[in-house]
Amino acid sequence: MLNLLEPTPPHWVEHASADLPRLLSDHAHCELKAAQSALSLVGRYAGEAPELVEPLVALAKEETQHYQLVHQRIAARGERMALPASDKYVRSLQQAAREDHREAPALLDRLLVCAFIEARSCERFKLLSEHLPDPDLAEFYAALMVSEARHYRLFSGLAEARFGQAARTRMQRLAEREAAIAAHLPLGPTVHG
Amino acid sequence: MLNLLEPTPPHWVEHASADLPRLLSDHAHCELKAAQSALSLVGRYAGEAPELVEPLVALAKEETQHYQLVHQRIAARGERMALPASDKYVRSLQQAAREDHREAPALLDRLLVCAFIEARSCERFKLLSEHLPDPDLAEFYAALMVSEARHYRLFSGLAEARFGQAARTRMQRLAEREAAIAAHLPLGPTVHG
Repeated sequence: MLNLLEPTPPHWVEHASADLPRLLSDHAHCELKAAQSALSLVGRYAGEAPELVEPLVALAKEETQHYQLVHQRIAARGERMALPASDKYVRSLQQAAREDHREAPALLDRLLVCAFIEARSCERFKLLSEHLPDPDLAEFYAALMVSEARHYRLFSGLAEARFGQAARTRMQRLAEREAAIAAHLPLGPTVHG
Repeated sequence: MLNLLEPTPPHWVEHASADLPRLLSDHAHCELKAAQSALSLVGRYAGEAPELVEPLVALAKEETQHYQLVHQRIAARGERMALPASDKYVRSLQQAAREDHREAPALLDRLLVCAFIEARSCERFKLLSEHLPDPDLAEFYAALMVSEARHYRLFSGLAEARFGQAARTRMQRLAEREAAIAAHLPLGPTVHG
């Protein structure tokens, strides 16, 4: 359903739960970046594709809200966010899309890269919801998993509505690239690590 | 009250009202950039200055909401947003701050540059609210003028709370730089043009 051809090894959760402060900080940055990315898409494409504006503005608000929830947890634990770090998974995915960019319009690729980031986050949050020992935190990730699945459908749906069959073809190609990237990620205490 | 030493010439409104599609599109981009800038400040400084998180997250949500309101007006007029353009006023202000950056910590300057952008927007929206012939649009800008004044106080207040007297001294210095920049802006149909 999420177009993920390469499942995350279940023992990724051990790495994640071994350093919850780092996981939560990285997760907070992911939510912020997702909000910024939605606003950036709006700024670039509102004229060309005005149908994106309302759903992406709603998404930006929701991601900002999720950031706030994660940050409140970090603060309640007496912790602080780390400085933002580059997300190797996201960079690799963007690079893979650029490498064969003649296959697809830039907007299509931007929507689909966002779709995969949401899909992979959804899969990871599901693992956290099932395996984290803290029941409260597990429940938090169960709720966010549902949101990420909805965001995946939002991005893939916007891509299909605008680009039709080209979106479905490109999605399959990027699914292969995404799986190859996911298969070689080091396992660490980050959402996409 | 807004620390603006150089008033905008009243006939700027003539330029603005002569090309409302361009003014509204530029204004929409300003709101988007303000939301992105607030989220960017949070991402960079949440660890170092966690007291910024809640007010700046609330601000990002509000700016996103304002963007949505402006875009709805653009769409209702049957118009579309233009591509984002570089904002000479904002670039000049950032550059002026960097030129004598040894005087102040980077965070202080980022907060004060945001404060001046809000202040100048507030002054311009006041002119629009008083002189635009369309009463509905004039009322819209009157409401936004009040928000911009509040955002100016937010940024200058966050700067003072964290940096005390250094913030007040730096504010006076940047007020002079801002006035010199504003005095030489070409008058056009943009919020800071």
